[in-house]
Amino acid sequence: MPGDSFGHSFRITTAGESHGPGNVVIVDGCPPGLPLAEEDLVEDLARRRPGQSRIVTPRNEPDAPEILSGVFEGKTTGTSIAILIRNVDQRARDYSDIRDKYRPGHADYTYDAKYGRRDYRGGGRASARETAVRVAAGVVAKRIIASAFGGRVVGYVRQVGDVVAEVPDPAAVTEEQVERLPDGAPNIVRCPDPARAAEMVALIEAVREARDSIGGVAEIVAAGVPAGLGEPVFDKLKADLAKALFSLPAVLGVEYGVGFGCARLRGSENNDLFRPAEAGGIAKREAADGAPPAGSHIVTGTNRHGGMLGGISSGMPIVLRAAVKPTSSLPRDQATVTTAGESTTIRTRGRHDPCLLPRFVPMAEAMVAIVLADHWLRWRASSGSGAG
Amino acid sequence: MPGDSFGHSFRITTAGESHGPGNVVIVDGCPPGLPLAEEDLVEDLARRRPGQSRIVTPRNEPDAPEILSGVFEGKTTGTSIAILIRNVDQRARDYSDIRDKYRPGHADYTYDAKYGRRDYRGGGRASARETAVRVAAGVVAKRIIASAFGGRVVGYVRQVGDVVAEVPDPAAVTEEQVERLPDGAPNIVRCPDPARAAEMVALIEAVREARDSIGGVAEIVAAGVPAGLGEPVFDKLKADLAKALFSLPAVLGVEYGVGFGCARLRGSENNDLFRPAEAGGIAKREAADGAPPAGSHIVTGTNRHGGMLGGISSGMPIVLRAAVKPTSSLPRDQATVTTAGESTTIRTRGRHDPCLLPRFVPMAEAMVAIVLADHWLRWRASSGSGAG
Amino acid sequence: MPGDSFGHSFRITTAGESHGPGNVVIVDGCPPGLPLAEEDLVEDLARRRPGQSRIVTPRNEPDAPEILSGVFEGKTTGTSIAILIRNVDQRARDYSDIRDKYRPGHADYTYDAKYGRRDYRGGGRASARETAVRVAAGVVAKRIIASAFGGRVVGYVRQVGDVVAEVPDPAAVTEEQVERLPDGAPNIVRCPDPARAAEMVALIEAVREARDSIGGVAEIVAAGVPAGLGEPVFDKLKADLAKALFSLPAVLGVEYGVGFGCARLRGSENNDLFRPAEAGGIAKREAADGAPPAGSHIVTGTNRHGGMLGGISSGMPIVLRAAVKPTSSLPRDQATVTTAGESTTIRTRGRHDPCLLPRFVPMAEAMVAIVLADHWLRWRASSGSGAG
Amino acid sequence: MPGDSFGHSFRITTAGESHGPGNVVIVDGCPPGLPLAEEDLVEDLARRRPGQSRIVTPRNEPDAPEILSGVFEGKTTGTSIAILIRNVDQRARDYSDIRDKYRPGHADYTYDAKYGRRDYRGGGRASARETAVRVAAGVVAKRIIASAFGGRVVGYVRQVGDVVAEVPDPAAVTEEQVERLPDGAPNIVRCPDPARAAEMVALIEAVREARDSIGGVAEIVAAGVPAGLGEPVFDKLKADLAKALFSLPAVLGVEYGVGFGCARLRGSENNDLFRPAEAGGIAKREAADGAPPAGSHIVTGTNRHGGMLGGISSGMPIVLRAAVKPTSSLPRDQATVTTAGESTTIRTRGRHDPCLLPRFVPMAEAMVAIVLADHWLRWRASSGSGAG
Repeated sequence: MPGDSFGHSFRITTAGESHGPGNVVIVDGCPPGLPLAEEDLVEDLARRRPGQSRIVTPRNEPDAPEILSGVFEGKTTGTSIAILIRNVDQRARDYSDIRDKYRPGHADYTYDAKYGRRDYRGGGRASARETAVRVAAGVVAKRIIASAFGGRVVGYVRQVGDVVAEVPDPAAVTEEQVERLPDGAPNIVRCPDPARAAEMVALIEAVREARDSIGGVAEIVAAGVPAGLGEPVFDKLKADLAKALFSLPAVLGVEYGVGFGCARLRGSENNDLFRPAEAGGIAKREAADGAPPAGSHIVTGTNRHGGMLGGISSGMPIVLRAAVKPTSSLPRDQATVTTAGESTTIRTRGRHDPCLLPRFVPMAEAMVAIVLADHWLRWRASSGSGAG
Repeated sequence: MPGDSFGHSFRITTAGESHGPGNVVIVDGCPPGLPLAEEDLVEDLARRRPGQSRIVTPRNEPDAPEILSGVFEGKTTGTSIAILIRNVDQRARDYSDIRDKYRPGHADYTYDAKYGRRDYRGGGRASARETAVRVAAGVVAKRIIASAFGGRVVGYVRQVGDVVAEVPDPAAVTEEQVERLPDGAPNIVRCPDPARAAEMVALIEAVREARDSIGGVAEIVAAGVPAGLGEPVFDKLKADLAKALFSLPAVLGVEYGVGFGCARLRGSENNDLFRPAEAGGIAKREAADGAPPAGSHIVTGTNRHGGMLGGISSGMPIVLRAAVKPTSSLPRDQATVTTAGESTTIRTRGRHDPCLLPRFVPMAEAMVAIVLADHWLRWRASSGSGAG
Repeated sequence: MPGDSFGHSFRITTAGESHGPGNVVIVDGCPPGLPLAEEDLVEDLARRRPGQSRIVTPRNEPDAPEILSGVFEGKTTGTSIAILIRNVDQRARDYSDIRDKYRPGHADYTYDAKYGRRDYRGGGRASARETAVRVAAGVVAKRIIASAFGGRVVGYVRQVGDVVAEVPDPAAVTEEQVERLPDGAPNIVRCPDPARAAEMVALIEAVREARDSIGGVAEIVAAGVPAGLGEPVFDKLKADLAKALFSLPAVLGVEYGVGFGCARLRGSENNDLFRPAEAGGIAKREAADGAPPAGSHIVTGTNRHGGMLGGISSGMPIVLRAAVKPTSSLPRDQATVTTAGESTTIRTRGRHDPCLLPRFVPMAEAMVAIVLADHWLRWRASSGSGAG
Repeated sequence: MPGDSFGHSFRITTAGESHGPGNVVIVDGCPPGLPLAEEDLVEDLARRRPGQSRIVTPRNEPDAPEILSGVFEGKTTGTSIAILIRNVDQRARDYSDIRDKYRPGHADYTYDAKYGRRDYRGGGRASARETAVRVAAGVVAKRIIASAFGGRVVGYVRQVGDVVAEVPDPAAVTEEQVERLPDGAPNIVRCPDPARAAEMVALIEAVREARDSIGGVAEIVAAGVPAGLGEPVFDKLKADLAKALFSLPAVLGVEYGVGFGCARLRGSENNDLFRPAEAGGIAKREAADGAPPAGSHIVTGTNRHGGMLGGISSGMPIVLRAAVKPTSSLPRDQATVTTAGESTTIRTRGRHDPCLLPRFVPMAEAMVAIVLADHWLRWRASSGSGAG
């Protein structure tokens, strides 16, 4: 039943499996006049794609996007944008193993329970393959928020196993730091703390050697977001952001600001106190009619609240973290059952990531940007100037 | 803009503020024939309401629900059910302080930023008062899942400050344990570990004495849920459950199963292995046509996956945790700014909870039940027997 | 299943039956700052209510609305507005007749077929009683469009039986003409052609004398609507307006502009030709940033297209017509079957309208205004200035 | 803003323009296990496509559909189905005329007013080209309703200009009659009254000769639909069907049953009286659990109510009519304005249909089938057996 759409005023709808002809996204609600071309989608797709470095799966998916509609003479028309990414690396192989057995940690069994059938060539619709088109749609969303209010979304790897990066000021992390090490070499693990980045890479390589995988935590920061985005009750900005991140494969937890740490804090320790903003202390909202909303002249001295109060953006940077489990597919024997319910073992023969985090970063950025673009349009609809 | 509805096939829509005439919920999509009366709503409302014990706010809100529609001769008709709860404890008082100043940690400022105006008598729409009607709707949802597949949702307090309860088997916790101590006295903190419950109460009382507040973690377990609920991509069961919990006030983090702990695990440690079910090892799904779906004859030996794989229920108990921040209102001076942006201090004079957790439990149970009822109806629509 | 909500960015959700405690609407998405009070709702409710004149049902429903939320200090807050109208004229009576028999033309049978049960005291959820809260919500919508672009919606009765009013310029009809005859007396049939109005009243009275009822056609005009409202494909403005009108009880047909008459026309006769607007020839759009959109400087010389081209408003008056069937309840014996499927007869003893049209007018106006408010907010979200 | 999706539990989302790379539809909510292949889509696409006969536009669009997802081993998987139809007949030509002038009757001007820009190569998103993918999705819907309850949807041309077909029993018309004349020749106008069909063809040819176009009326019948489909208030079956038909290009009116004719009828003439069904008198509902709902043992002797009462299906055939305007594009000079607002003339040079009706039939069938499939799934969700 319809679960393949996301968003209210900026809405994406997707289709596609890992081993079918391709994946497609329809982006509905993009304002007209935004410059957009297929080349613009390439960079983030390259950050997501397999085969990009020695610590991710060596599968080769070029991920060449084709824009089928909604763009004319280099700009969006305001009508729905369809983007197609064909699957190409579909090797002829023997699927009988995963057809007849349930892989631990995967959705094979739950799909069978739900539908009574499944596409057993890889993960089907449950494969992370479906996130490629989300990343493409995320590029559109990033453009909207950059154009509308100078918003930018930067994600990075905060933790792999026991290696935790130090990030003194999340809002100061740049995409350059995430993608390049200080010496200019590719930052293949996407951790902005260079010392920890090296440790993470070493850990991931050791894990792969051990025929195992490892989990981690990604942090995503949205800076430049004006105060006032989000709806009061069910569609709180924090709720939509959490759903967005939890909709990604392998995410077991999401928190923002001080997160689970709040359980041990007292109110007097946790509250961020308001104070008048000094010049440049806050990104002034670019309202539809040019007037900043009430209150954009104040800030909080600390940001334990992670940029959202009452579920509505406060003007401070939005800081989210997502816990990502270790890859379930392992190149070693694991006990499981056959689809007939009998005990057996399974060993993954495909090419898999020893750690999902480096490729998770662009997926998470995309989903966060999509939520922000949606809530920006929602704000324009009912809180903007011009009606009452 | 419309953010006051939640759910797809079982959908609730709410309205109301803390100091207006009342709060109302419209429950849309409840199947016909379910027994329902106003008395049925009372118990969970009493668990949520202020004034229920010495460790919660002493405000007095009787929360008498009135069913305005959708029930005839003691049973639901299948049409929309409206439930009204009037506000009664609206003392005449001086609101000038919170009208002119922004309370730290509250939504006063973000509402002003969003709307340019707000109802300054208490939290308005941002008050936890709005959750009363969610709890009422949750009773309807609990009945649906109990009737449909014997599902039950039990929540409890897992942590307050540094006091962490031991709960060896979350799925074995009963509502009786949550509400009563072994000696029959009320379990006012709603923690099923009696020793820790006493420590939590002592901590909360000490915090209140110190004119402060304290955070914590609630755990919510859904047992008896058949395998197969949830949609593949955006409306994964985990994503909708996370949104549901994050839509509640004061929630800063949500995780399920091993949660953030997964970051430190290897795949070989984290994967739950499938094995054939022994008799009674899994709640057999009561499918619409009486036939269990494929695969309900298998289980996992452990439950680090928290009952969901690929975002779809696996038949194992669903185990969620939510981090709840310490109450922001404090009966002590806190620095803040006026609505005009000038420095000042504020001291909360209202009656507030020193710890939100005891009253959070029924709210969280309600939201989890609402998601499960929704996904049960969604499952019936498109995966049930009868079409293809 | 959720079918009690209508609209995307301005959305109403309703509940209530004819003989329950009351009816309620939640209006979600109303912009903040709009003046609103309970008194504002009274006028349109009085136009809809029973007992208003000698040609409608003599039931007495005072329809006193109570605003439960979303309004503070006389203005909307931007959060959801709940409006409650209690039922009062619920006479104790014997319902056994309609409990055990299916009234011809009513929904008794189809509700039983759908739900397996129904509230048999009157029409339950199928009663026109549910439209009272739609009319209340329509007042909010009328305020939005008046405030935003000077839009106004006027409905009237165009036809009753064979009596067809002459209305040379639909966009010139005023609410004053609809409500008052030239001599100042109430225009109880709401037809702006005074001579035909008198004939219609005489026809309705004759029909009532004959223990019968009569159908008719209402015409609804929305003037001052800027060009550019509506979405390209499924949510064409014409499609949403048609759904809105067809969602009202007793409507069997909807058309706009030349309507079914187009079947006999050639393209050369049907096309409205564009020409440059003379001063004042078109209502200039009040765009969010003060700039009129491209093209508002042109008009069509004729309006066979009824104000919409490609499903998007053209800036010309929107002219719709709805066919309303004769009341099905008749104070005479009609053949039917019992709920057990046996032949019988039934005679309506309740008080019913001999012609639905006079009371239909405010219902239709409300639904048209709700669609226009919704599409105005939608336009602001994605086509307004400020993003690209 | 999102207007490119239609349906609640069975939902289609589309993208594409007349002169872009192609059109795509994502079908969300199709139950698993339904046989489906690209070949199945070909027949209805051929009925819709240009160039099929001498009375439609001679453009050549082969409309070869590609299923991109959601089908595995010849059956639907239950996940979203994407179907792509590439555009091929995009001749290089000079668009300057329609780029700089507004074609009368088209959406050129309203798109400019809405978006400030448009794809001026043909109709862009407003072109009837977008209906090709609707027809493809309609094939899926037709399969669902056929499989679920033996439902079938047949459309035909009822009127062209002054030529009105006689159709004594709409529910008895077969697709064979619509597609073939009694002598086996193609029924190119799709009118089941052979004598009138010949007159219609002659009229269309005469109109084309006169460099003009002509309107008409299509009738669509859904037979075998069980009683009980549709929701009580806004999502009445009649309301969703009307929206579906009005969402098609060129539709100016929709009615069902006696339609606008009801305006002249008395209640005693209009009411259809219930009577016990004789054997075979009604299609018995195939409920999810095999039990027919209450009341399926009764019928009405006449069908002026067009198969819906209170907006819910009655078990009698559903009979709808849509008025379709004459093609706006004419191969003759018409007065209009330039995009700069100056007077000019325009003459259509493209290849256009002299009458839209023959190609409209499969589009209308598709939309009706989509609504029925959606409401069937909705019925299963909340009124089916298994919950209360």
